[in-house]
Amino acid sequence: MSIDYQALAVEGVQSLTPYQPGKPIEELAREYGLAPDEIVKLASNENPLGPSPVALEAAREALEEMCRYPDGNAFTLKKALSRYLAVAPTQLTLGNGSNDVLEVIARCFAAPGAEVIYSQHAFAVYPLVTLAIGAQGVEVPAKNWGHDLDAMADAVTDQTRLIFVANPNNPTGTVEGEAAIRAFLDKVPSRVLVVLDEAYCEYLSGSDDEVDGITLLQDYRNLIVTRTFSKAWGLAALRVGYAVSSPSIADILNRVRQPFNVDTVAQAAATAVLEDLEYLERSREVNRHGLRQLEAGFSELGLEWIPSAGNFVAVDVGDNAQGVFEGLLEQGVIVRPVAGYGMPRHLRVTVGLPEENERFLRALTRTLATHGT
Amino acid sequence: MSIDYQALAVEGVQSLTPYQPGKPIEELAREYGLAPDEIVKLASNENPLGPSPVALEAAREALEEMCRYPDGNAFTLKKALSRYLAVAPTQLTLGNGSNDVLEVIARCFAAPGAEVIYSQHAFAVYPLVTLAIGAQGVEVPAKNWGHDLDAMADAVTDQTRLIFVANPNNPTGTVEGEAAIRAFLDKVPSRVLVVLDEAYCEYLSGSDDEVDGITLLQDYRNLIVTRTFSKAWGLAALRVGYAVSSPSIADILNRVRQPFNVDTVAQAAATAVLEDLEYLERSREVNRHGLRQLEAGFSELGLEWIPSAGNFVAVDVGDNAQGVFEGLLEQGVIVRPVAGYGMPRHLRVTVGLPEENERFLRALTRTLATHGT
Repeated sequence: MSIDYQALAVEGVQSLTPYQPGKPIEELAREYGLAPDEIVKLASNENPLGPSPVALEAAREALEEMCRYPDGNAFTLKKALSRYLAVAPTQLTLGNGSNDVLEVIARCFAAPGAEVIYSQHAFAVYPLVTLAIGAQGVEVPAKNWGHDLDAMADAVTDQTRLIFVANPNNPTGTVEGEAAIRAFLDKVPSRVLVVLDEAYCEYLSGSDDEVDGITLLQDYRNLIVTRTFSKAWGLAALRVGYAVSSPSIADILNRVRQPFNVDTVAQAAATAVLEDLEYLERSREVNRHGLRQLEAGFSELGLEWIPSAGNFVAVDVGDNAQGVFEGLLEQGVIVRPVAGYGMPRHLRVTVGLPEENERFLRALTRTLATHGT
Repeated sequence: MSIDYQALAVEGVQSLTPYQPGKPIEELAREYGLAPDEIVKLASNENPLGPSPVALEAAREALEEMCRYPDGNAFTLKKALSRYLAVAPTQLTLGNGSNDVLEVIARCFAAPGAEVIYSQHAFAVYPLVTLAIGAQGVEVPAKNWGHDLDAMADAVTDQTRLIFVANPNNPTGTVEGEAAIRAFLDKVPSRVLVVLDEAYCEYLSGSDDEVDGITLLQDYRNLIVTRTFSKAWGLAALRVGYAVSSPSIADILNRVRQPFNVDTVAQAAATAVLEDLEYLERSREVNRHGLRQLEAGFSELGLEWIPSAGNFVAVDVGDNAQGVFEGLLEQGVIVRPVAGYGMPRHLRVTVGLPEENERFLRALTRTLATHGT
């Protein structure tokens, strides 16, 4: 008898379509016969600055310990993070990127059948981790491309266990201020956990309206704030993210995360980069400048975009966004189609270095002339 | 109202005790006021040789790409592995260490309520991943410290979805030959998946009786073989493991693994080390020599040990194994207590370099004189 092993998989997994990452430079180079150094990748919200020299040096040194298992408790990194964030080490849960942390949270608190709320156009990993455990995803329609927090609070039922809020949100770049987030948290029953995903918080400009989720933890015990070293800190290759919560919730999360989920090199680089505040400031500055550059370019081309608080911007390129995406690929420029996010007219463009933004804008101009609508 | 967030966690997670890793050198140094370079760690079945120079160089180069996400499809590593193992790239699922692969397998195929079979004294991760998803662990009593494969096959019920077989097994070092594994697979219904965990297979001596799980894949479609780069290949710090299965099963596993679960540095080092067969051969040779050295030492001390096919050996130190463990710590030698594996009289000792084995044996001699029974 021939068995269909796919039919033996748990229900949610059978209907799962994996996350579609940005196209890697090497892959485009292979497929289009381009030289890797001719390619501009603005597809994965990566830091265009290249490595922090401080992080690079620490990572190099850590390689000497290649044969030893990582410190499963990440003593040194937790100490550094705890100082940087002004929280206790017992409030921290580290992950192999914040993707790992988001998945562990879902696995800990949402059983099959539970409801998990997230917004339309929000980060693709929320529905993925929900589906993989057989829980029920509840997608709440967006308002002006952003989270409709009132509607999300209203969507809570007796079955709701978890709500994901991305702030700023990827791929739209929208952000909610402190008053809105507090009003939302006041409405959500305290038995429902709220995950405030602040992967892009380092790019916020520091205005009074903004929210730092960690300062809310003392008022809302059902809050979990997640962050990452993959964006402004420039460590995407190494995979370090973390959650900050009450020690009681962190204790649960730490039981389920894999004991060696953050590797030795990643721990060393993350510990070191927290001291490199000059790198962080340069990352922000390059991003501020690049965002203005992209916006100016879009204006000239008569394109509409969604104002962004992140290191990327979603631009409306018309009915043939897939064609525009491919036209850019042919010219060695990789951006991200977001039709899978319910945004078929947009492309998401990561803010690059000035010359990269320029290369992209020129390629876009040329492409729109042939593929535009 | 004050909420108990631990009570909100899914049922299996509430009763979970996390994996206890070997004590890191830095931790012992902090706790006992010792200098790190005075400490001998034989606690985590790590390769004592230090990094392969080939892997080290590749990892260093890969650090330049620190700001970029890893290749989620691991094109280059899969190509190298596929050549090394003589399997198709579509048969491979990569993991953040083989722990990650084992967890993904359980999450894909064992829903809450399903039964998962493993042996007494087998690797602690099997019950952990089972419990975390709310499945039912079925521990089958060992036979002569090894897997009782007949009893494991007999334990299959209609609810059984998964069986874990570690070969060689950690922490006992026992191994089953090809005939025994085939006879077992012949008995298990093909709707039940069998995971053959070959984390230590590189240390097998190459005799005819041994089994290479990958050669069995064509005869048993329900088989998944897992392996790791953390032991003989010397990459424990970087976290790379993999599963080899039918493409149909691999497709399912690849939907659930996190898209960037193996980082850039890890992919580069693993790809490179597969070319360093001289390093692999030295790892085996150092292990063969060290095992004989430890066995000779145990003989002299009148201790019994379990003959091991791995890079470690479990030795019976009497009723006060915890006291002996602590006595060794005081002398700067870290080994692993295995009471948690139902082996309260044993300590598991990783095979080290000749001088490390010697340090351990001297410390053991001294400790037994004071803490022995």
